[in-house]
Amino acid sequence: MPDLILALDVRDRISASTIVEETSDSIDAIKLGYPLVLAEGLGIAKLLFDISELPLIADFKVADIPNTNRLIAEQVFHAGFSSIICHGFPGEDAIVACTEVAHDAGGTCFVVCEMSHPGAPTFYHGGVAEQMAKLAIHAGADGIIAPATRPERVEVLRAIVQDALIYSPGIGTQGGDAAQIADLVDGMIVGRSIYEASDPKAAAQVYAPFRRR
Amino acid sequence: MPDLILALDVRDRISASTIVEETSDSIDAIKLGYPLVLAEGLGIAKLLFDISELPLIADFKVADIPNTNRLIAEQVFHAGFSSIICHGFPGEDAIVACTEVAHDAGGTCFVVCEMSHPGAPTFYHGGVAEQMAKLAIHAGADGIIAPATRPERVEVLRAIVQDALIYSPGIGTQGGDAAQIADLVDGMIVGRSIYEASDPKAAAQVYAPFRRR
Repeated sequence: MPDLILALDVRDRISASTIVEETSDSIDAIKLGYPLVLAEGLGIAKLLFDISELPLIADFKVADIPNTNRLIAEQVFHAGFSSIICHGFPGEDAIVACTEVAHDAGGTCFVVCEMSHPGAPTFYHGGVAEQMAKLAIHAGADGIIAPATRPERVEVLRAIVQDALIYSPGIGTQGGDAAQIADLVDGMIVGRSIYEASDPKAAAQVYAPFRRR
Repeated sequence: MPDLILALDVRDRISASTIVEETSDSIDAIKLGYPLVLAEGLGIAKLLFDISELPLIADFKVADIPNTNRLIAEQVFHAGFSSIICHGFPGEDAIVACTEVAHDAGGTCFVVCEMSHPGAPTFYHGGVAEQMAKLAIHAGADGIIAPATRPERVEVLRAIVQDALIYSPGIGTQGGDAAQIADLVDGMIVGRSIYEASDPKAAAQVYAPFRRR
């Protein structure tokens, strides 16, 4: 059974810390993106870790040249994150840059191999996601990101990455079904269904039957 | 003849402001990336604008789902940037999200259609960059990013985007030749050759013969 990862896509530290205080006993990790980090600075990581003591994942979808990826990743792990998410499409050297910095810091690196929004298939389908998953593993990444909204695609990518980790966004409001995806992945990423709920703790506990303990 | 754009890839505000003070009369715009912005916050944009009064380009290579792209772009233009750079790989809706926010703010959006590092060809070649350039223009973007290190590729993409803008990185230290690329592009992006020079102003003035006035 997978971890439950909260995608904390709020945009200020008050909302962020309130939701983390309420849910930290019911989740296993917290994923932060640029909208919150640009608004509040990288220091938001330490604030949320001090509240929750949970692993923090920097969902920065890093997609620059290798040297710039390295500089971004260094700041991410220095700020206290445990994991970083990078893109696969800039190629193997760009993935290696993030992975090396992650491993030097005792952290992990995940590679986006397929996205979940309507425009994604243009460049991800036709074999690209499969090729990217192979490349991610070859580059030493710890796992990949694949969409819970398309479980049949997660199955295809699972066969490629085998024992590597798969974290899967899109569960809840976006339509992905925890019951359907839990056996396929290592992390269920849930955002709005939890942080927009009137009772975020209760909303997180809905996923307890599918969650690793 | 193109603009001269300084890629200000330093990592602290003292270096950044010193180099901008020295070079602002010799350049036309300043491009900032995440390593500097994560270290100093988005407020670095206002600081550098107050010194230079030059247009600022947020080279964040934005590559998320449309809603997240929109949230990132809103913060970029609110911080005082004039332009944003996004990736084409996530598809048309993701590009449209950045472009709409840019245009609402009176700014511009550029789409990365080909990258310049060794790992880039894996997913960008074989027609992908060309398809991405068409998509960028269809999505309403103001221009594309294409590498000065591969002028033959810039020629191919120029034929596709026609009158849209092309900004081109990789000139100077990375090997791109201003004399060779100036007639093909609307912006020459130069980084280390200027900001690592013992005399950044003199280094910027080397590009004066190729620069629009």
